[in-house]
Amino acid sequence: MIFRIATRRDLPAVLALLADEDRVLDPASMPVGEEHERAFAAIESDARNEMLVLTDTDTDTEAGGGGTVVGCLQLTYIPGLGQGGQERALVEAVRVRADRRGEGLGAELMRLAAERARGRGCGLIQLTSNKRRTAAHRFYERLGFARSHEGFKLPLDRP
Amino acid sequence: MIFRIATRRDLPAVLALLADEDRVLDPASMPVGEEHERAFAAIESDARNEMLVLTDTDTDTEAGGGGTVVGCLQLTYIPGLGQGGQERALVEAVRVRADRRGEGLGAELMRLAAERARGRGCGLIQLTSNKRRTAAHRFYERLGFARSHEGFKLPLDRP
Repeated sequence: MIFRIATRRDLPAVLALLADEDRVLDPASMPVGEEHERAFAAIESDARNEMLVLTDTDTDTEAGGGGTVVGCLQLTYIPGLGQGGQERALVEAVRVRADRRGEGLGAELMRLAAERARGRGCGLIQLTSNKRRTAAHRFYERLGFARSHEGFKLPLDRP
Repeated sequence: MIFRIATRRDLPAVLALLADEDRVLDPASMPVGEEHERAFAAIESDARNEMLVLTDTDTDTEAGGGGTVVGCLQLTYIPGLGQGGQERALVEAVRVRADRRGEGLGAELMRLAAERARGRGCGLIQLTSNKRRTAAHRFYERLGFARSHEGFKLPLDRP
């Protein structure tokens, strides 16, 4: 497997993973809206954000990828005054393609993300998972994460 | 009250709030380490991070502040492909000075943070709170936050 920063050509595959966790959608059928282009460009150009993909080695190439995307996640590196001034890494948008579950790809994805964050000097990696997703909770606990916090969300209306 | 972006001169007061939630520490007695300087500069220079302080109006000034800091929080604006490409706002390091609790300053601080995030175009504001802090959980729920997620953390060793 190859774990690398997503490029614009991976965007349809990433949108397919995000759009439906339980079915395999054809990336070619995904509408890529102007809002997706803008958000992807924002992630790509931000030194503290990375959209990362896991791809099959045999179809990826050295020259910028293009392999079959089987998983993704976003890392945000957050500067802060605590923890001796170390950044913390926030994980969002973790997905493994529905037909590739049970191969340990999710664990590999998270291991690579933690390694990447550690290599950068982060003191902590954190994420939230919907309370309904109990299998995901066991998964994160098996990986060594402590379920120590309550996660709160508030949707904001348009100004 | 004034709600504004913290400047370098607020750093000792912010560190005093972060160092001990239950006691009022004298900002002048706070050691400001090189790691704090570096982290504060990283926050200050990042377009998607803001350290915000709530100060007493009567001691603050138009010219860059300097008033008594009674509360703080950090906002991180995270670009993402979901939610129509809107950013989400992450809240960290929420503190109200121990001797100023019970005046509604925490609610005011969170209201101003949500208003700021909404004004910027964020679709969501989110935070995590340690499971032991049950009073804080009721506080966030009163403010309209849904306790919908489990929060996971994993400390990372130095590389």
